[in-house]
This record gives sequence, C-alpha cells and structure tokens, in this order.
Amino acid sequence: DPTLKLFTLNSNPELAQEIADHIGIELGKSSVTKFSDGEIQINIEESIRGSEVYVIQSTSDPVNDHLMELLIMIDALKRASAKTINVVIPYYGYARQDRKARAREPITAKLVANLLETAGATRVIAIDLHATQIQGFFDIPVDQLLGVPILGNHFSSKNLNDIVVVSPDHGGVTRARKLADRLKAPIAIIDKRRPRPNVAEVMNIVGNIEGKTAILIDDIIDTAGTITLAANALVENGAKEVYACCTHPVLSGPAIERIENSKIKELVVLNTIVLPEEKKTGKVTQLSVAPLLGEAIIRVHEQLSVSKLFD
Amino acid sequence: DPTLKLFTLNSNPELAQEIADHIGIELGKSSVTKFSDGEIQINIEESIRGSEVYVIQSTSDPVNDHLMELLIMIDALKRASAKTINVVIPYYGYARQDRKARAREPITAKLVANLLETAGATRVIAIDLHATQIQGFFDIPVDQLLGVPILGNHFSSKNLNDIVVVSPDHGGVTRARKLADRLKAPIAIIDKRRPRPNVAEVMNIVGNIEGKTAILIDDIIDTAGTITLAANALVENGAKEVYACCTHPVLSGPAIERIENSKIKELVVLNTIVLPEEKKTGKVTQLSVAPLLGEAIIRVHEQLSVSKLFD
Ligand SMILES: Nc1ncnc2c1ncn2[C@@H]1O[C@H](COP(=O)(O)O)[C@@H](O)[C@H]1O
Ligand SMILES: Nc1ncnc2c1ncn2[C@@H]1O[C@H](COP(=O)(O)O)[C@@H](O)[C@H]1O
Repeated sequence: DPTLKLFTLNSNPELAQEIADHIGIELGKSSVTKFSDGEIQINIEESIRGSEVYVIQSTSDPVNDHLMELLIMIDALKRASAKTINVVIPYYGYARQDRKARAREPITAKLVANLLETAGATRVIAIDLHATQIQGFFDIPVDQLLGVPILGNHFSSKNLNDIVVVSPDHGGVTRARKLADRLKAPIAIIDKRRPRPNVAEVMNIVGNIEGKTAILIDDIIDTAGTITLAANALVENGAKEVYACCTHPVLSGPAIERIENSKIKELVVLNTIVLPEEKKTGKVTQLSVAPLLGEAIIRVHEQLSVSKLFD
Repeated sequence: DPTLKLFTLNSNPELAQEIADHIGIELGKSSVTKFSDGEIQINIEESIRGSEVYVIQSTSDPVNDHLMELLIMIDALKRASAKTINVVIPYYGYARQDRKARAREPITAKLVANLLETAGATRVIAIDLHATQIQGFFDIPVDQLLGVPILGNHFSSKNLNDIVVVSPDHGGVTRARKLADRLKAPIAIIDKRRPRPNVAEVMNIVGNIEGKTAILIDDIIDTAGTITLAANALVENGAKEVYACCTHPVLSGPAIERIENSKIKELVVLNTIVLPEEKKTGKVTQLSVAPLLGEAIIRVHEQLSVSKLFD
C-alpha cells in the first residue's frame, strides 16, 4: 500500500496542519523560500519515492506567487518519483476568467488547468470551482467539494426562524437552492436590471422576503459591492435581518469597509483563503474546511467516491 | 505577407518602445492591469488575426508576475488567431535552476520552458541563457543572442591599453574568451578553491594580470559577491585597474553596496533588466539591447538566420 504524504506550501499552512491532524499524520518536511532575487526555492526534505502525495495550496492573492510555488512543487515531486501528485486547491484563482466574453480575451482558468497538468499533477481536489466548465478544463480527475453543507450546519445551529435564502444574482440560484433545502427554507432572487443604458441598476427582488431572516449566499465575495447592495435592498424591502455567507472570502479593496457599513449582521465564510487580522472584524465568522478536505483525502486515498459524501 | 506586430508587457516597456522605433513600427495596443484581488487582466486592443506577433518580456523580479503576464498574453494571442507567437525574453528567469544538483530539487528552468510551450509560444528569442542546456529544454525554435558584442564595442571605444579579460570562475571561460578575441587581449581565470572544509576559499589567479587593465565578465551579476571579491583579488595581485561587465544586471540584495565599496572602476551592463533609479549609481553604465533585438526580429520575420549575425 503506497504511503499517503501531505505537504503544505505558503498559502494555507494552518489549514494544512489541521488537515494533517484530522487524518492523523504529520505534515511532510519541506521548505519554500525565496532567493535574493525573488525566485522561489523549494526543498523537499524527506523521500517521497512511490508515495501518494497531496499538496495543499490555494491560488489566492498573491496569486502568481502561489501558483508558481505549486507548479514548482509539482515539478520537484514528479522528478522525485512520487506515485501520484494530488493537488488540493481550496480556492482556485483566475476562476472568473473562464470564457472569452470579449474579443481577444485570454481564458486564464483554462491556462492554469493546462499549466498544472504540464507540471505533472495527476488529480485535483477543489472546493466550489465558480464555473461549472472548469472541471472540464482538466484531462485529469477533478473532485469538486461544496461549501454549502458547512455553511448550512452553521445556520442550522443558530435556530433562526422564518428564513429565506437569497441568491444575489441569477447565476447563483442552484447554490441558494442547495442551502435552502438544508435549511428547509424558500428562496428569493435578486434580479438586477438596467432599464436603459446609463441609468442606474434597479434591484428587483423575486420572492417573498417581508419580515423574514434573509441569508444571502455567493461562492466568492471579492470587493463585496454586489452582496452589500443586495443586503441593503433586502432590508429596504422589508427583510427583518440579513446574514451573508460564501465559500471564498477574497475580500479585496473596499470589501471590509463596505461590509462594516452595510446592513449585513454576520458574514460567514470558509477558510479556503487565509484572512489577515485586519479582515477579521466582529461581523466575520470563519469556518474550517479541514474536516471536509481531510475526509476527501482519506476517501481518495482509499479509492472511494468523494462526490457522494458531501452533497 | 503576414504583418509583424510587436507587443510589450510590464517588465521592459522602454526597451520595447526602442525596439519598435528600431524596426520602424508602432507598438501594438494592449494593456496589462490587475483586478482588485491581484489577478492579471490583459486586453489586446487591436486585431492580430493572422499576424506574426512578437512579445517583449523579461522574467525578471517580480519573476512570477512577469512570467504569468507572459503566459496569459500568449494564451490570449493564441485564442485571437495569431499566426506565430514569438516570445522575446531578454532575461530568462529561473535559469539557474537548470539541473537536479541535490535530491528532490525541481528543474524550474525546464518547467518554465514547458509552461511557455503549453501556453502556445511558437518561438523563443533570448539573450545569454546562462546554461547551455536551456535551449534543449524547448521543443520549439530558440534563437539565442549574445551580449558580448555590445560589451566588446563599449570597451573598444574606450581605447584601454594592456587589457586582460578575466573570468570569475571556470564556467565563464568561453564567454571571457569571446570578449578577449574581440578586444585582442589575453584571458585570465579566477580559480577559487577551499583547501579544506570550513577553511576560507583561496582566490588563485591563473594567467598574467600584473600591471594590466582587467575586465571581469559574467552573464548574471546577482548579489555581486563573486564579482566584487574577484575584483579586489585582482587589484591585490597587481592589476592596474578593474572593470566589470555582464549581460543581466539582477543586482539584488547587497549588490549595489558591494559594488560601490569594491575596487571595480566601472560596471557595464545591458538593459535586459530594468534598473530602478537607486541602482543607477555613478559606477554603472547601461547599454541597450534594442538594436540587437530589433535586428533579430527583422531577420526572424524575413526568415533569415539570426545566430550568424551576432556571434
Ligand atoms: N479577478 C477578478 N476580479 C474581478 N473581476 C474579474 C476577475 N477575473 C475576471 N473578472 C471578470 O468577471 C467577469 C466574470 O465573472 P462571473 O460572471 O461572476 O463569472 C468577467 O467579466 C471577467 O472579466
Ligand atoms: N535565483 C537564484 N539565486 C541564487 N542562487 C540560485 C538561484 N537559482 C538557483 N540558484 C542556485 O545557483 C546554483 C546554480 O548556479 P550556477 O552554478 O551558476 O548555474 C544552484 O546551486 C542553485 O541552487
């Protein structure tokens, strides 16, 4: 039976340690440093010959550094004769560049898939891949896990009454439906439209939110413009209170300020992306994906299906 | 006849403009910016369908950002139906990770070659690739140009007397020989050896330098430890004065301080890497590779041999 080895890079070292603890193994010995000129240097400090290796790395900000760390690590593992190289990417960066929306645009999400395969990855485990097409960008197996069950458990444990789960746009309705099913709640949808060019968007709410506790859900919250405008529109239209949640807390630029100044009561996020201290405000609750990823790794290693387990 | 189009990314915009001027064309319209979360966004603002496209980009510090800009640009050009995608890489980063010197090391210079091909590059034009094996890492044509003629012309024009060209180590002897031939001068070699473990290195100088004007040459000067120790050893051993030169001025960490405090009279470098103002001290002279790259691009576009021209 080949040994399971788990390595971390620099994006999520604490999550990697938690996953190792969950599985009951030690993290593999390795170091990722920089030469004086900024080039990445990786040292793998134990034999991995014939092992099934799992590498934990989100391609979060600084995305290019995190991606190159991962690619160089994969190259080193391949040349050191790993049996399989399973890359665990809690947050897959560049996922929003997933199609040619305008002429001469790159499809960077596909490029990244090609780069990972070229380096030598043999499997990808990821959480909430933003666009359904990304799984198909790979020619190697991709296990996609979902954040909804973790978010659902959190809201269940709060014993909220008269909930409505709200999708901030049409693209997120399936995700909202999944959370609503877990909470045995109805859904509503924010239907943004621009009546004429150069006229402000109108927020039309489809579904009944009057007097209810609204839970907004998205996969990524980046600058938080969409989610905070949605929250305020919900309150203006009669919602009793508004929670928001997402899998990937990118929270760039004005995000935290917008959330603090918004009607959102609590923002619940996962730890696919590390939050620096200044983003851990009183409104933000962060839940761990370590048990989810730990179980997924155990199941992949034992050649059991992953997708059925967490849906 | 397909059109020649030239684009710049963010590493060397002034050099790219100089090359465009040399060829007598305008730079292609494009922009490389960052989204709020740090992801690279590239817009190509003119049609390149059926064109032979040349992209100027060094993978200098910040190396991972510069490399990703280049890969994403190649992806965009490929999807926009460029006829050929010629990447002009004045300085090829990660070139010193060119072999497995220790167990479980990556070979990042080879990984980068694979990534460029995977993205869709059809040809590489580079200057002084550090390791001879790097050309062979590619399965596409690679034109390697040399910095020596430009450096040689500079020193010829100074009318120095009684020159000796010095290689700071055994690996650089061929390069020193090429410069010496141009200057009709003899060579010398610095032969570093550690007599016993944990005993300081001894600088042994092979060749006659007594009373001569020494010109040290290397391909890359990074932290400048090697070159400044060599310069001081030359003066201590009787050289009249010491010049130093290289193709790629990485000049990281303590480099400038070391050069300022050394016996080096002038450091002559090329502009394969942009020098920030604080590195442009009185000792540093920077020469342009724009005519060299401009001629190379014209010749490649006209399907003429490049290698013969500049040797
Ligand atoms: N990192 C990013 N930050 C903000 N917008 C992005 C980013 N990457 C891609 N986009 C844009 O987001 C849109 C796609 O988002 P979506 O419709 O949510 O898949 C496209 O218009 C992209 O140009
Ligand atoms: N960016 C870098 N900065 C300093 N040393 C490096 C860098 N990349 C690789 N090296 C080391 O440089 C040595 C190879 O240099 P060389 O013998 O000049 O080809 C190897 O020991 C590498 O580990």
